[in-house]
Amino acid sequence: MRRRGGGDRQDEGTPGTVVTPSAEFPPLTEEELGALRRIGEQWEGAGDGRPPPSPELPIDPSLRRHRGGPTPGRFGRLAPIAMFDVGEPGELVATEPANVPGTRLGRGLTRVRRALLGPPLTSAAVLYERMRKLVALPVLSSDLLSSVAYGPEAMLAVLVLAGSGALGASLPLTAVLAVLMVAVGLSYRQTVVAYPHGAGSYVVATDNLGVRPGLAAAAGLMVDYVLTVAVSVAAGVSALTSAMPGLTRFAVPLGVLTIAVLLAGNLRGVRAAGNLFVWPTYAFILALLALLVVGYARAGARGFEPVAPPAVPAVEGLGLLLVLRAFASGAVSMTGIEAVSNAVPAFRPPEWRNARTTLGWMVGMLVLLFVGLTVLIHLDGLVPKADVTLLSQLARVTFPTGPWYALVQAATALILLLAANTAFNGFPRLLFFMAGAGHAPRRFLHMGDRLAFSDGLVALAVAAGVVFVAFRGHTQALIPLYAVGVFLAFTLSQLGMVVHWRRRRDAGWRRRAVVNAVGAALSGLVLVTAAFTKFTSGAWVVVVAVPLLVLLSLAIHRHYRTLQRSVALHPAPGGPRPRPALAPAPLLGAAEPGAPAEAQELPQQVRHLVVVPVARLNRASLRALAYAVSLGQPTLAVHIAPEDPEGDRFREQWEAWGDHVRLEVIVSPYRAVIGPLAHYLEALHVAAPDVVLTVIVPEVVVRRRWHQPLHSRAEHRLRRALSALPGVVVTSLPVHLAD
Amino acid sequence: MRRRGGGDRQDEGTPGTVVTPSAEFPPLTEEELGALRRIGEQWEGAGDGRPPPSPELPIDPSLRRHRGGPTPGRFGRLAPIAMFDVGEPGELVATEPANVPGTRLGRGLTRVRRALLGPPLTSAAVLYERMRKLVALPVLSSDLLSSVAYGPEAMLAVLVLAGSGALGASLPLTAVLAVLMVAVGLSYRQTVVAYPHGAGSYVVATDNLGVRPGLAAAAGLMVDYVLTVAVSVAAGVSALTSAMPGLTRFAVPLGVLTIAVLLAGNLRGVRAAGNLFVWPTYAFILALLALLVVGYARAGARGFEPVAPPAVPAVEGLGLLLVLRAFASGAVSMTGIEAVSNAVPAFRPPEWRNARTTLGWMVGMLVLLFVGLTVLIHLDGLVPKADVTLLSQLARVTFPTGPWYALVQAATALILLLAANTAFNGFPRLLFFMAGAGHAPRRFLHMGDRLAFSDGLVALAVAAGVVFVAFRGHTQALIPLYAVGVFLAFTLSQLGMVVHWRRRRDAGWRRRAVVNAVGAALSGLVLVTAAFTKFTSGAWVVVVAVPLLVLLSLAIHRHYRTLQRSVALHPAPGGPRPRPALAPAPLLGAAEPGAPAEAQELPQQVRHLVVVPVARLNRASLRALAYAVSLGQPTLAVHIAPEDPEGDRFREQWEAWGDHVRLEVIVSPYRAVIGPLAHYLEALHVAAPDVVLTVIVPEVVVRRRWHQPLHSRAEHRLRRALSALPGVVVTSLPVHLAD
Repeated sequence: MRRRGGGDRQDEGTPGTVVTPSAEFPPLTEEELGALRRIGEQWEGAGDGRPPPSPELPIDPSLRRHRGGPTPGRFGRLAPIAMFDVGEPGELVATEPANVPGTRLGRGLTRVRRALLGPPLTSAAVLYERMRKLVALPVLSSDLLSSVAYGPEAMLAVLVLAGSGALGASLPLTAVLAVLMVAVGLSYRQTVVAYPHGAGSYVVATDNLGVRPGLAAAAGLMVDYVLTVAVSVAAGVSALTSAMPGLTRFAVPLGVLTIAVLLAGNLRGVRAAGNLFVWPTYAFILALLALLVVGYARAGARGFEPVAPPAVPAVEGLGLLLVLRAFASGAVSMTGIEAVSNAVPAFRPPEWRNARTTLGWMVGMLVLLFVGLTVLIHLDGLVPKADVTLLSQLARVTFPTGPWYALVQAATALILLLAANTAFNGFPRLLFFMAGAGHAPRRFLHMGDRLAFSDGLVALAVAAGVVFVAFRGHTQALIPLYAVGVFLAFTLSQLGMVVHWRRRRDAGWRRRAVVNAVGAALSGLVLVTAAFTKFTSGAWVVVVAVPLLVLLSLAIHRHYRTLQRSVALHPAPGGPRPRPALAPAPLLGAAEPGAPAEAQELPQQVRHLVVVPVARLNRASLRALAYAVSLGQPTLAVHIAPEDPEGDRFREQWEAWGDHVRLEVIVSPYRAVIGPLAHYLEALHVAAPDVVLTVIVPEVVVRRRWHQPLHSRAEHRLRRALSALPGVVVTSLPVHLAD
Repeated sequence: MRRRGGGDRQDEGTPGTVVTPSAEFPPLTEEELGALRRIGEQWEGAGDGRPPPSPELPIDPSLRRHRGGPTPGRFGRLAPIAMFDVGEPGELVATEPANVPGTRLGRGLTRVRRALLGPPLTSAAVLYERMRKLVALPVLSSDLLSSVAYGPEAMLAVLVLAGSGALGASLPLTAVLAVLMVAVGLSYRQTVVAYPHGAGSYVVATDNLGVRPGLAAAAGLMVDYVLTVAVSVAAGVSALTSAMPGLTRFAVPLGVLTIAVLLAGNLRGVRAAGNLFVWPTYAFILALLALLVVGYARAGARGFEPVAPPAVPAVEGLGLLLVLRAFASGAVSMTGIEAVSNAVPAFRPPEWRNARTTLGWMVGMLVLLFVGLTVLIHLDGLVPKADVTLLSQLARVTFPTGPWYALVQAATALILLLAANTAFNGFPRLLFFMAGAGHAPRRFLHMGDRLAFSDGLVALAVAAGVVFVAFRGHTQALIPLYAVGVFLAFTLSQLGMVVHWRRRRDAGWRRRAVVNAVGAALSGLVLVTAAFTKFTSGAWVVVVAVPLLVLLSLAIHRHYRTLQRSVALHPAPGGPRPRPALAPAPLLGAAEPGAPAEAQELPQQVRHLVVVPVARLNRASLRALAYAVSLGQPTLAVHIAPEDPEGDRFREQWEAWGDHVRLEVIVSPYRAVIGPLAHYLEALHVAAPDVVLTVIVPEVVVRRRWHQPLHSRAEHRLRRALSALPGVVVTSLPVHLAD
């Protein structure tokens, strides 16, 4: 069955960085395999070289014999046997209808789902598409380049607090930010070369700095991804409402709708549409370049004389703090710079070289656009306004007539949508890798039926939607939260690279370490600046959230480690024991010194007592008794009576039936049923901790939901009451009503 | 164990009218017992006269042998073995601690509960107290007599819509109402004699008119009980706020608090405090009699000259419709007149005579108070006001000084509280009888640990609370709803009596039938009048609710009848069959013509296939396999692989372990697990419908609630997916983490 392909892909890349549908089922280690072999040898009968003593199966499990004329099932529309193709011996392949739930509601929901998201995709359809540089540039840079749609405005919106005279400070700040961009860009060029299998900040920081810094970087990235969606959607909606002010009051529902469409598109799996994503980025770049050319031509026409901005009264003085805040706000233009380093394996070979070149272009383009726009805004004397974005003002001033203004706005809205979409690629992948290491819930390892990480996508959309609505879709209110997470990840990633070089000590490692150290230092500077200067205006949310996320990840990891320890394979203690039937006098009274019930891993160790609670004698309870007795294990029936005479009456009925099973009547003078029953089972467990108690309870299965309150759900309540008690197995015997 | 008593009480009264904790466990009919005997004879081994072949139990179920030194359980604080006293052979008695849940949260909640409601009461503590007439009068009449606190006002509030001049019409209306009261009273006197075991309208109507009229009467009564609580609490709060106007804005929370206190008191079980209830009623009667004496004395001093009422402008004309509405409103004073007929067995012998005498006194007192108050209000020229009740105005006019006014108001508030309390006695009893006949959910048969019908009490309190809040605690807004339910029950009950006499044709049956027919006609007149004239002002709620309740009861009854048919005892078809091991070639392919899995009621009929879904090989899944194999039945392991290579890898591990159990790998290319597994089990079921499939799934039991989302809950989802499939048993094998 290798023909279905996709099997040898697992060797690609280092383990833990490859996305595969089998990640939920990690292979066993050599040690575990050894333990497994030894356990197998202890299994009853295995030592004699005889075939396993299991009785012959009453049904052919390969369904081969039944394939001829399958009776259609009551339960589905398709005959269930036809839902499985026969594969190799001992293997069946589920066809697509086997995924559809059996209930009518489930089938309806599945139909709606498929209409929205498309038919399911097989595991073999996982895409390992390689990108040319000309495709990679727009796909990977949308997040980075789209930031110039709101970055300069974020900086100027802070400066204008000190009055329109303070706007001139934007020029030196822009120069500093350009240096920062180049430094961080150079720093990431080195990461690309060092981690040709692709490395997010999480991997680099974990590898070199340890688990906690790695989780901190991951937490920063998670916050970053959520805010990327919220900010990009908010800015995109602003680009739209700047052009069409009538839509302003629908900004929040419009943004939520956008997030929902992004979620649906990603649940559908839009990766195949990669080439479609090329155009908005190029359109945006072209539009901004045209804007810059025309703008500077017009400025040149008046001798590059700055237009005096309209007078804006100062609210604060132009102090160092304000300048630092403006700097930290402008630095959000750098979000997305790390995208290439995550995606190195997606390039055509030689991957690292192509990735490095692309990164170089991206950073160059970023610096060009950022500096060009900021200076042009200064020359045109524009100031931030509440309802219209600066970019919209600039486009309006530069293209007073013609369709060009509308094109700039449309391209801006589109690239921002694309930027939000990159977060929908990155966030679930990050959670996938974290889940693989046990730092996030395992469910994030699971690929949905469209090969998308559905849970991760939904988590991102919900978080971004909540943030977006909480901030009423106001871009500038979200900016203070944005920088902290991003620059935390940058700083830890670059620091990790410094350690990486120090450890390897290749030729020229000092030079490389210095480059990364400069990058780390500058990123760290922005991080601290952003965290301090914007703490009260929103950054505190992130400052609080990141440590909480790290603690949560650690707690999740602890829990999974406990689980792992509890279920890890190791040879059964004590080796084979004689069957209980041969054991001396099991009724001697005190608990026999066997293994406790939950430590029994060999069939010959298991001693059974089957307990059947019987409320009244009817066909359901007789079926439960017949089922219990047919298992051939010691069986005990228990009746809970509300008062003594009722108990006596029940015993009379029992004797009329023939007293085939040992009956114990428990009088519960306070009329409770579940409590005394649970405590009685506990008492039995305490009396003989090595006996597995199997409780068999009939459960009425109702057809209609409103019938549920008409039944006591004793089975459900008993299960809950017994859940804390080890060695007690609850078996529910369904009773289907003819209705 | 007869010493605990309460056993022979079941012979008292006709079956179905006695309240007993054993009502949940009705005795078997002779026919069922016969079927049970025949089934027992077919049970394996029973025919040979040998003892049942069940293996010896590994634990002494009477816990006798373990009683010496019980190891304290991990699960509770008390050693669980000590929670059970040894009774007769094969019988244990649960002590009080056995009712306390094992979890910490459960123990805490139990402690709070006990502090509020008191310790649990044993079944033997059911009270069968007999009442003297002097006690019965106040206890049973509080509902009836308290109605005069709002009845006259309800009538006058309608009349005053036609201006203060129309208030004079109250005198002829009062006369008509007095006749009505006497007629209905006489009618109920006959019911008391005819049904000495006590008969609510539900019983009388069901007995004589059939199920649907009986359910209609029950629905009317249910609505009546809910409104009794709502109206009495509203009127009681009005009596309070009339005296203390500062409390007016807290009227709604005050009323809700009152309902909560009534609920808590009744959950605690206040029946023993019956004698305490004597005083408010007598105090109320005395206060009103004093009011009448003083009031008429004052009126006589001025020659019984009516004071002219203040001029109120007419909103409507004084038409027939308005008069009829006023009449129907005044008729609410008769609510509660049926209380005696429900409670005949509670009187001392001769019950019927004492009950009849008490009823006579009650009706006399009602007519006296109602007529006296209405005429006095007319003489004093009082008109209804929004904030102050008429009774309060009358008391203020009559007792301008001294503490007398406050005493009248306090007695009124108290008796109204008592009237609300009578509904808390009646409603759960009604539901108990309905549940006994299968017309209400079975849970209403269950007595809580304080011997109260907790579910019925909570249902009443919730319904009354919702109604009270919905009407903002406004008495006069509730009145239009009130009359319809009550008079529906009255009418059906009296009609039932007419049929009763016609059927029996005793001496003088014609005279009795005429009395009841007159009662029925008059009650029906009020019913129709109320339903029509107040339809738009609120009565439509009841007109809609009553048929809905009847339909609901019928649907519940249908469901229980289906259940009853499904589980009713009858001899197993076909008699004993050979064990499956001896059956010819079970793997022949097509389904063997055995009984379908859910029809198997004899152990020798049951054929097993144990299926163990294995996601990965670890201690949990090996334990599941060991458990399955140790049952000694044919066992099949199933692995769901997301892609082919993973399936191959799993099979290699399986072979390393030793291939002790037949393994079937199902490749699920769309990565779903539950769907294909459920459909595979369905396919197995279709292939051999007579084989019981037991699915054994390990289930991780988490200690902390927030750990739950970290696990897939596959066991839970599988159980849900399989619930519609007959013959599939799901067994969850708990895995407890060391953490």
